[in-house]
Amino acid sequence: MESLEMKICEGKVDEEILPIVESINSNPDYFTTSSCAGRIALIEMPGLGDKEAAEFLGKWHREVQVEEVIAEFSKAKDNTTVFLLAQSPIIHIRCKNLESAVKLRNIAVESGLKYSTLKSLTLNSKKEPVKVVVEILSSENIHVPIARSGRLFPNEDYLSFLVENANQALRRAREKLERFKANIA
Amino acid sequence: MESLEMKICEGKVDEEILPIVESINSNPDYFTTSSCAGRIALIEMPGLGDKEAAEFLGKWHREVQVEEVIAEFSKAKDNTTVFLLAQSPIIHIRCKNLESAVKLRNIAVESGLKYSTLKSLTLNSKKEPVKVVVEILSSENIHVPIARSGRLFPNEDYLSFLVENANQALRRAREKLERFKANIA
Repeated sequence: MESLEMKICEGKVDEEILPIVESINSNPDYFTTSSCAGRIALIEMPGLGDKEAAEFLGKWHREVQVEEVIAEFSKAKDNTTVFLLAQSPIIHIRCKNLESAVKLRNIAVESGLKYSTLKSLTLNSKKEPVKVVVEILSSENIHVPIARSGRLFPNEDYLSFLVENANQALRRAREKLERFKANIA
Repeated sequence: MESLEMKICEGKVDEEILPIVESINSNPDYFTTSSCAGRIALIEMPGLGDKEAAEFLGKWHREVQVEEVIAEFSKAKDNTTVFLLAQSPIIHIRCKNLESAVKLRNIAVESGLKYSTLKSLTLNSKKEPVKVVVEILSSENIHVPIARSGRLFPNEDYLSFLVENANQALRRAREKLERFKANIA
Protein backbone atom coordinates (compact mmCIF):
# COMPACT_ATOMS: atom_id res chain seq x y z
CA MET A 1 0.00 0.00 0.00
CA GLU A 2 3.00 2.29 -0.17
CA SER A 3 2.48 3.61 -3.66
CA LEU A 4 0.58 6.69 -4.66
CA GLU A 5 -1.50 4.64 -7.07
CA MET A 6 -2.82 2.52 -4.23
CA LYS A 7 -3.28 5.43 -1.86
CA ILE A 8 -5.87 7.04 -4.06
CA CYS A 9 -8.02 3.94 -4.14
CA GLU A 10 -7.76 3.16 -0.46
CA GLY A 11 -10.52 1.25 1.17
CA LYS A 12 -12.97 0.97 -1.66
CA VAL A 13 -13.59 -0.88 -4.85
CA ASP A 14 -14.72 1.36 -7.66
CA GLU A 15 -17.59 0.21 -9.86
CA GLU A 16 -15.60 0.01 -13.09
CA ILE A 17 -13.31 -2.65 -11.66
CA LEU A 18 -15.96 -4.75 -9.95
CA PRO A 19 -16.70 -7.23 -12.80
CA ILE A 20 -12.98 -7.94 -13.21
CA VAL A 21 -12.43 -8.36 -9.48
CA GLU A 22 -15.38 -10.77 -9.33
CA SER A 23 -14.06 -12.72 -12.29
CA ILE A 24 -10.62 -13.09 -10.67
CA ASN A 25 -12.08 -14.06 -7.30
CA SER A 26 -14.31 -16.73 -8.86
CA ASN A 27 -11.11 -18.76 -9.30
CA PRO A 28 -10.15 -20.37 -5.96
CA ASP A 29 -6.44 -19.83 -6.73
CA TYR A 30 -6.81 -16.04 -6.52
CA PHE A 31 -8.14 -13.30 -4.32
CA THR A 32 -7.82 -9.58 -4.85
CA THR A 33 -6.56 -7.48 -1.94
CA SER A 34 -6.95 -4.06 -3.56
CA SER A 35 -7.96 -2.65 -6.90
CA CYS A 36 -8.47 0.51 -8.91
CA ALA A 37 -9.74 0.83 -12.50
CA GLY A 38 -7.36 3.70 -13.20
CA ARG A 39 -7.87 7.37 -12.49
CA ILE A 40 -7.26 10.87 -13.56
CA ALA A 41 -6.08 12.85 -10.57
CA LEU A 42 -4.97 16.31 -9.57
CA ILE A 43 -2.52 16.30 -6.67
CA GLU A 44 -0.46 18.89 -4.87
CA MET A 45 2.79 18.42 -3.01
CA PRO A 46 5.09 20.80 -1.14
CA GLY A 47 8.37 19.84 -2.86
CA LEU A 48 8.96 18.40 -6.30
CA GLY A 49 8.43 14.67 -6.10
CA ASP A 50 7.63 14.71 -2.38
CA LYS A 51 4.95 12.08 -2.77
CA GLU A 52 4.74 11.25 0.91
CA ALA A 53 3.18 14.65 1.49
CA ALA A 54 0.96 14.60 -1.61
CA GLU A 55 -2.67 15.57 -1.24
CA PHE A 56 -5.48 15.11 -3.70
CA LEU A 57 -7.34 18.09 -5.09
CA GLY A 58 -9.45 15.95 -7.41
CA LYS A 59 -9.76 12.34 -8.54
CA TRP A 60 -11.93 10.84 -11.22
CA HIS A 61 -12.48 7.23 -12.25
CA ARG A 62 -13.68 8.49 -15.60
CA GLU A 63 -12.75 10.86 -18.38
CA VAL A 64 -12.78 14.50 -17.31
CA GLN A 65 -13.53 17.91 -18.77
CA VAL A 66 -10.95 20.67 -18.59
CA GLU A 67 -13.43 22.82 -16.60
CA GLU A 68 -13.53 20.20 -13.84
CA VAL A 69 -9.76 20.24 -13.58
CA ILE A 70 -9.69 24.03 -13.35
CA ALA A 71 -12.41 24.00 -10.69
CA GLU A 72 -10.44 21.60 -8.47
CA PHE A 73 -7.20 23.47 -9.12
CA SER A 74 -8.71 26.53 -7.50
CA LYS A 75 -8.43 24.70 -4.14
CA ALA A 76 -4.61 24.45 -4.38
CA LYS A 77 -2.55 25.96 -1.57
CA ASP A 78 -0.10 28.80 -2.09
CA ASN A 79 3.17 26.98 -1.79
CA THR A 80 2.77 23.70 -3.63
CA THR A 81 3.41 22.06 -6.99
CA VAL A 82 0.29 20.68 -8.66
CA PHE A 83 0.43 17.62 -10.93
CA LEU A 84 -2.11 16.29 -13.41
CA LEU A 85 -1.91 12.50 -13.51
CA ALA A 86 -3.40 9.69 -15.52
CA GLN A 87 -2.81 6.60 -13.44
CA SER A 88 -2.88 3.00 -14.57
CA PRO A 89 -5.46 0.52 -13.33
CA ILE A 90 -3.91 -1.45 -10.50
CA ILE A 91 -4.99 -4.78 -9.01
CA HIS A 92 -3.18 -6.70 -6.28
CA ILE A 93 -3.92 -10.41 -6.24
CA ARG A 94 -2.84 -12.95 -3.65
CA CYS A 95 -2.15 -16.19 -5.49
CA LYS A 96 -2.34 -19.76 -4.24
CA ASN A 97 1.18 -20.56 -5.39
CA LEU A 98 3.96 -19.52 -7.71
CA GLU A 99 2.49 -21.43 -10.64
CA SER A 100 -0.87 -19.69 -10.49
CA ALA A 101 0.89 -16.33 -10.05
CA VAL A 102 3.11 -16.76 -13.11
CA LYS A 103 0.11 -17.85 -15.15
CA LEU A 104 -1.94 -14.80 -14.16
CA ARG A 105 0.91 -12.40 -14.72
CA ASN A 106 1.54 -13.81 -18.20
CA ILE A 107 -2.13 -13.48 -19.18
CA ALA A 108 -2.04 -9.86 -18.02
CA VAL A 109 1.07 -9.06 -20.07
CA GLU A 110 -0.42 -10.80 -23.12
CA SER A 111 -3.57 -8.69 -22.65
CA GLY A 112 -1.43 -5.56 -22.99
CA LEU A 113 -1.02 -4.81 -19.28
CA LYS A 114 2.72 -4.81 -19.77
CA TYR A 115 3.88 -3.57 -16.39
CA SER A 116 2.26 -6.49 -14.54
CA THR A 117 4.69 -8.28 -12.24
CA LEU A 118 5.10 -10.53 -9.26
CA LYS A 119 4.95 -7.64 -6.83
CA SER A 120 6.15 -9.52 -3.81
CA LEU A 121 6.41 -12.86 -2.09
CA THR A 122 7.94 -14.24 1.06
CA LEU A 123 9.69 -17.54 1.68
CA ASN A 124 8.66 -19.79 4.54
CA SER A 125 11.13 -21.72 6.72
CA LYS A 126 11.32 -24.42 4.03
CA LYS A 127 12.22 -21.73 1.46
CA GLU A 128 8.88 -22.20 -0.25
CA PRO A 129 7.15 -19.13 -1.71
CA VAL A 130 4.11 -17.95 0.24
CA LYS A 131 2.04 -14.77 0.17
CA VAL A 132 2.65 -14.45 -3.55
CA VAL A 133 1.21 -11.17 -4.83
CA VAL A 134 0.75 -10.31 -8.50
CA GLU A 135 0.33 -6.66 -9.44
CA ILE A 136 -1.65 -5.87 -12.60
CA LEU A 137 -0.44 -2.63 -14.16
CA SER A 138 -0.58 -0.93 -17.53
CA SER A 139 2.05 1.29 -19.15
CA GLU A 140 -0.28 4.23 -19.91
CA ASN A 141 0.79 7.23 -17.96
CA ILE A 142 0.53 11.00 -17.86
CA HIS A 143 2.47 12.80 -15.14
CA VAL A 144 2.64 16.57 -15.63
CA PRO A 145 3.48 19.35 -13.20
CA ILE A 146 1.02 22.10 -14.21
CA ALA A 147 1.38 24.72 -11.47
CA ARG A 148 3.72 26.10 -8.83
CA SER A 149 2.75 28.38 -5.93
CA GLY A 150 -0.70 29.04 -7.31
CA ARG A 151 0.51 29.83 -10.83
CA LEU A 152 -1.14 27.65 -13.47
CA PHE A 153 1.32 27.33 -16.36
CA PRO A 154 -0.61 25.86 -19.33
CA ASN A 155 -3.07 28.10 -21.16
CA GLU A 156 -6.55 26.78 -21.87
CA ASP A 157 -5.55 25.32 -25.23
CA TYR A 158 -2.67 23.38 -23.76
CA LEU A 159 -4.65 22.29 -20.72
CA SER A 160 -7.29 20.87 -23.08
CA PHE A 161 -4.56 18.97 -24.90
CA LEU A 162 -3.19 17.58 -21.63
CA VAL A 163 -6.66 16.53 -20.47
CA GLU A 164 -7.32 14.91 -23.86
CA ASN A 165 -4.09 12.93 -23.46
CA ALA A 166 -5.03 11.90 -19.92
CA ASN A 167 -8.49 10.78 -21.09
CA GLN A 168 -6.95 8.76 -23.91
CA ALA A 169 -4.49 7.10 -21.51
CA LEU A 170 -7.43 6.10 -19.28
CA ARG A 171 -9.39 4.75 -22.26
CA ARG A 172 -6.48 2.68 -23.57
CA ALA A 173 -5.78 1.18 -20.17
CA ARG A 174 -9.48 0.30 -19.72
CA GLU A 175 -9.51 -1.46 -23.08
CA LYS A 176 -6.60 -3.60 -21.93
CA LEU A 177 -8.41 -4.34 -18.69
CA GLU A 178 -11.41 -5.56 -20.73
CA ARG A 179 -9.10 -7.78 -22.78
CA PHE A 180 -7.63 -9.17 -19.55
CA LYS A 181 -11.13 -9.89 -18.23
CA ALA A 182 -11.98 -11.79 -21.42
CA ASN A 183 -8.71 -13.73 -21.27
CA ILE A 184 -9.16 -14.95 -17.69
CA ALA A 185 -12.80 -15.95 -18.19
CA MET B 1 13.07 -5.88 -23.61
CA GLU B 2 9.53 -4.95 -24.58
CA SER B 3 9.30 -1.71 -22.64
CA LEU B 4 10.15 1.73 -23.84
CA GLU B 5 12.49 2.22 -20.91
CA MET B 6 14.62 -0.70 -22.04
CA LYS B 7 14.44 0.20 -25.70
CA ILE B 8 16.25 3.46 -25.15
CA CYS B 9 19.14 1.77 -23.44
CA GLU B 10 19.47 -1.10 -25.87
CA GLY B 11 22.80 -2.75 -26.25
CA LYS B 12 24.92 -0.57 -24.09
CA VAL B 13 25.73 0.10 -20.50
CA ASP B 14 25.90 3.79 -19.69
CA GLU B 15 28.74 5.03 -17.51
CA GLU B 16 26.58 6.22 -14.63
CA ILE B 17 25.30 2.71 -13.99
CA LEU B 18 28.59 0.86 -14.38
CA PRO B 19 29.71 0.88 -10.70
CA ILE B 20 26.32 -0.48 -9.60
CA VAL B 21 26.27 -3.15 -12.31
CA GLU B 22 29.77 -4.24 -11.29
CA SER B 23 28.77 -4.35 -7.64
CA ILE B 24 25.75 -6.54 -8.41
CA ASN B 25 27.74 -8.86 -10.68
CA SER B 26 30.47 -9.34 -8.08
CA ASN B 27 27.94 -11.53 -6.22
CA PRO B 28 27.79 -14.98 -7.88
CA ASP B 29 24.02 -15.16 -7.22
CA TYR B 30 23.33 -12.31 -9.66
CA PHE B 31 24.05 -11.14 -13.14
CA THR B 32 22.65 -8.10 -14.88
CA THR B 33 21.11 -8.56 -18.32
CA SER B 34 20.38 -4.91 -19.07
CA SER B 35 20.63 -1.60 -17.31
CA CYS B 36 20.04 2.13 -17.59
CA ALA B 37 20.82 4.84 -15.02
CA GLY B 38 17.68 6.77 -15.92
CA ARG B 39 17.19 9.28 -18.68
CA ILE B 40 15.52 12.39 -19.83
CA ALA B 41 14.11 11.79 -23.28
CA LEU B 42 12.18 13.53 -26.01
CA ILE B 43 10.12 11.12 -28.10
CA GLU B 44 7.59 11.46 -30.89
CA MET B 45 4.79 9.10 -31.81
CA PRO B 46 2.10 9.17 -34.49
CA GLY B 47 -0.92 8.54 -32.25
CA LEU B 48 -1.40 9.28 -28.57
CA GLY B 49 0.17 6.46 -26.60
CA ASP B 50 1.26 4.54 -29.68
CA LYS B 51 4.55 3.54 -28.07
CA GLU B 52 5.33 0.80 -30.56
CA ALA B 53 5.92 3.49 -33.17
CA ALA B 54 7.75 5.89 -30.86
CA GLU B 55 10.99 7.44 -32.07
CA PHE B 56 13.57 9.31 -30.07
CA LEU B 57 14.38 12.91 -30.89
CA GLY B 58 16.76 13.25 -27.94
CA LYS B 59 17.99 11.24 -24.98
CA TRP B 60 20.22 12.30 -22.13
CA HIS B 61 21.64 10.32 -19.24
CA ARG B 62 22.13 13.60 -17.38
CA GLU B 63 20.32 16.75 -16.46
CA VAL B 64 19.43 18.90 -19.46
CA GLN B 65 19.04 22.55 -20.39
CA VAL B 66 15.83 23.82 -21.90
CA GLU B 67 17.78 24.96 -25.00
CA GLU B 68 18.87 21.37 -25.68
CA VAL B 69 15.28 20.19 -25.57
CA ILE B 70 14.17 22.92 -27.97
CA ALA B 71 17.04 22.08 -30.35
CA GLU B 72 16.02 18.42 -30.52
CA PHE B 73 12.35 19.31 -30.79
CA SER B 74 13.09 21.12 -34.05
CA LYS B 75 13.65 17.67 -35.64
CA ALA B 76 10.05 16.55 -34.94
CA LYS B 77 7.92 15.47 -37.89
CA ASP B 78 4.74 17.25 -38.92
CA ASN B 79 2.14 14.78 -37.80
CA THR B 80 3.27 13.48 -34.41
CA THR B 81 2.80 14.03 -30.70
CA VAL B 82 6.03 14.84 -28.82
CA PHE B 83 6.53 13.81 -25.19
CA LEU B 84 9.10 14.97 -22.65
CA LEU B 85 9.96 12.09 -20.32
CA ALA B 86 12.00 11.57 -17.19
CA GLN B 87 12.48 7.81 -16.99
CA SER B 88 13.46 5.79 -13.99
CA PRO B 89 16.74 3.90 -13.78
CA ILE B 90 16.09 0.29 -14.75
CA ILE B 91 18.18 -2.79 -14.10
CA HIS B 92 17.26 -6.36 -14.99
CA ILE B 93 19.02 -8.99 -12.91
CA ARG B 94 18.94 -12.75 -13.40
CA CYS B 95 19.03 -14.31 -9.95
CA LYS B 96 20.32 -17.72 -8.90
CA ASN B 97 17.07 -18.64 -7.16
CA LEU B 98 13.92 -17.25 -5.64
CA GLU B 99 15.58 -16.57 -2.30
CA SER B 100 18.33 -14.39 -3.75
CA ALA B 101 15.74 -12.60 -5.91
CA VAL B 102 13.44 -11.75 -3.00
CA LYS B 103 16.45 -10.53 -1.00
CA LEU B 104 17.64 -8.22 -3.77
CA ARG B 105 14.17 -6.86 -4.47
CA ASN B 106 13.65 -6.08 -0.79
CA ILE B 107 16.97 -4.23 -0.53
CA ALA B 108 15.97 -2.17 -3.59
CA VAL B 109 12.58 -1.24 -2.12
CA GLU B 110 14.21 -0.35 1.23
CA SER B 111 16.66 1.85 -0.69
CA GLY B 112 13.72 3.84 -2.04
CA LEU B 113 13.45 2.10 -5.43
CA LYS B 114 9.82 1.35 -4.68
CA TYR B 115 8.68 -0.02 -8.02
CA SER B 116 11.22 -2.87 -7.94
CA THR B 117 9.63 -6.26 -8.54
CA LEU B 118 10.16 -9.84 -9.58
CA LYS B 119 9.71 -9.03 -13.24
CA SER B 120 9.37 -12.57 -14.46
CA LEU B 121 10.24 -16.19 -13.85
CA THR B 122 9.47 -19.51 -15.42
CA LEU B 123 8.77 -22.88 -13.82
CA ASN B 124 10.64 -25.97 -14.90
CA SER B 125 9.03 -29.40 -15.27
CA LYS B 126 9.36 -29.94 -11.50
CA LYS B 127 7.51 -26.63 -10.95
CA GLU B 128 10.68 -25.06 -9.61
CA PRO B 129 11.31 -21.39 -10.41
CA VAL B 130 14.07 -20.78 -12.94
CA LYS B 131 15.16 -17.74 -14.95
CA VAL B 132 14.16 -15.48 -12.09
CA VAL B 133 14.47 -11.83 -13.12
CA VAL B 134 14.33 -8.89 -10.71
CA GLU B 135 13.61 -5.45 -12.14
CA ILE B 136 14.97 -2.45 -10.24
CA LEU B 137 12.76 0.59 -10.78
CA SER B 138 12.10 3.90 -9.07
CA SER B 139 8.81 5.80 -8.82
CA GLU B 140 10.14 9.12 -10.16
CA ASN B 141 8.46 9.96 -13.40
CA ILE B 142 7.62 12.84 -15.70
CA HIS B 143 5.53 12.07 -18.77
CA VAL B 144 4.27 15.17 -20.58
CA PRO B 145 2.91 15.62 -24.10
CA ILE B 146 4.40 18.97 -25.15
CA ALA B 147 3.59 19.26 -28.85
CA ARG B 148 1.19 18.09 -31.56
CA SER B 149 1.76 18.39 -35.32
CA GLY B 150 4.74 20.68 -34.93
CA ARG B 151 3.04 23.01 -32.46
CA LEU B 152 4.98 23.37 -29.20
CA PHE B 153 2.45 24.13 -26.46
CA PRO B 154 4.42 25.29 -23.39
CA ASN B 155 5.95 28.76 -23.47
CA GLU B 156 9.60 29.15 -22.44
CA ASP B 157 8.75 29.74 -18.79
CA TYR B 158 6.67 26.59 -18.56
CA LEU B 159 9.15 24.53 -20.56
CA SER B 160 11.86 25.58 -18.07
CA PHE B 161 9.61 24.45 -15.22
CA LEU B 162 8.99 21.09 -16.91
CA VAL B 163 12.71 20.58 -17.55
CA GLU B 164 13.48 21.53 -13.93
CA ASN B 165 10.99 18.88 -12.78
CA ALA B 166 12.51 16.29 -15.10
CA ASN B 167 16.00 17.08 -13.83
CA GLN B 168 14.85 16.79 -10.25
CA ALA B 169 13.18 13.42 -10.97
CA LEU B 170 16.48 12.19 -12.44
CA ARG B 171 18.46 13.46 -9.44
CA ARG B 172 16.15 11.85 -6.90
CA ALA B 173 16.22 8.50 -8.69
CA ARG B 174 20.04 8.61 -8.88
CA GLU B 175 20.25 9.26 -5.14
CA LYS B 176 18.18 6.14 -4.53
CA LEU B 177 20.42 4.19 -6.89
CA GLU B 178 23.44 5.31 -4.80
CA ARG B 179 21.68 4.17 -1.64
CA PHE B 180 20.95 0.81 -3.28
CA LYS B 181 24.61 0.47 -4.24
CA ALA B 182 25.67 1.13 -0.66
CA ASN B 183 23.11 -1.34 0.69
CA ILE B 184 24.20 -4.24 -1.53
CA ALA B 185 27.92 -3.70 -0.88
